[in-house]
Amino acid sequence: MARTGRRPGASGTKEAILDAARRAFAEHGYQRATVRGVAELAGVDPALVHHYFGTKQALFVAAVRLPVNPVEQLSAVLADDPERVGERMIGVFLSVWDHSANNSPMLALVRSAMGDEQAAAMLREFITEEVLGRIAEELGSPDARLRATLAGSQLIGLMMARYIIRVEPLASAPAAQLAAAVGPTLQRYLTGDIAAIPAQR
Amino acid sequence: MARTGRRPGASGTKEAILDAARRAFAEHGYQRATVRGVAELAGVDPALVHHYFGTKQALFVAAVRLPVNPVEQLSAVLADDPERVGERMIGVFLSVWDHSANNSPMLALVRSAMGDEQAAAMLREFITEEVLGRIAEELGSPDARLRATLAGSQLIGLMMARYIIRVEPLASAPAAQLAAAVGPTLQRYLTGDIAAIPAQR
Repeated sequence: MARTGRRPGASGTKEAILDAARRAFAEHGYQRATVRGVAELAGVDPALVHHYFGTKQALFVAAVRLPVNPVEQLSAVLADDPERVGERMIGVFLSVWDHSANNSPMLALVRSAMGDEQAAAMLREFITEEVLGRIAEELGSPDARLRATLAGSQLIGLMMARYIIRVEPLASAPAAQLAAAVGPTLQRYLTGDIAAIPAQR
Repeated sequence: MARTGRRPGASGTKEAILDAARRAFAEHGYQRATVRGVAELAGVDPALVHHYFGTKQALFVAAVRLPVNPVEQLSAVLADDPERVGERMIGVFLSVWDHSANNSPMLALVRSAMGDEQAAAMLREFITEEVLGRIAEELGSPDARLRATLAGSQLIGLMMARYIIRVEPLASAPAAQLAAAVGPTLQRYLTGDIAAIPAQR
């Protein structure tokens, strides 16, 4: 067939960039992948990638098809009264997940991280670069990164139990009941006393 | 080749039973699989399955090659002073996992549950039948099953974060530090106040 000479429209270009981003993140990990490298793979100018998607972080969120940008959500959660950060964090988590858990790209991301070291590295680097640093900066405590990973461990476990293994009664528990149970856990991990030495036997 | 007529030794018979058990649990789930059905698949008498492996629960633990029997561990954890159950639970969890996390069959079990609804159902049914009932009985509270699943969600999330995604600093944190952080979470989920209504805005 003769080439028509028509350029792909904006949506075709965007898709080509996202395809290139998925390949780049899978191959190089989050940390080493660059907007420039993605642009090269897609055959476009880096400025166009920035124009369509903004930062590397936003490009990643779009490439793995997350329904919301977790870093933006997190910024909103961290911006308000620190004494209620746990309550806000579990509230946002449940409202996002309870509405998008079916067939969610986030589940796909975690699933692939379970089965594949390359995908695990990509997720680990994204969390380390984009999530933990932000929390550490907000909290300002010397052990802020450990605190953030502890909170993350509770959230990822809740996701597993409620949406993947779907063990009852947790899977069907009302969001308000879970928020009351889990909010104080997150609050303590983020701002409370986590260093109590266990009593010796 | 001529058949030698030799019967398989005990270890051959055991392996045949375990193979049959893996097929039966995968196909029928934990709940509907029976020792009788496994025996039939393996071509042996059900009494022999009981003789080698004891209960269906112990047969499952052997079939999926868990390094320890989680139900026995849990019984020990629950048997002592209820006010320190969280401390004992995280202690046992970390001592088992920190020593067997590499290449662990438990990881394989969780991995397959992530990717495959049949495996998720098997794990869900095992947890529901063998783990939650036991905790509920020990705790004696009306919401004991929810409490148990909350504790489980924290442990499965810790497993993901420390051994699979391996996000730092949690992945390399000393066990004692994690025990101090997570023990009180488990204690509160199992015996504390989890129903506080979050303050209204």
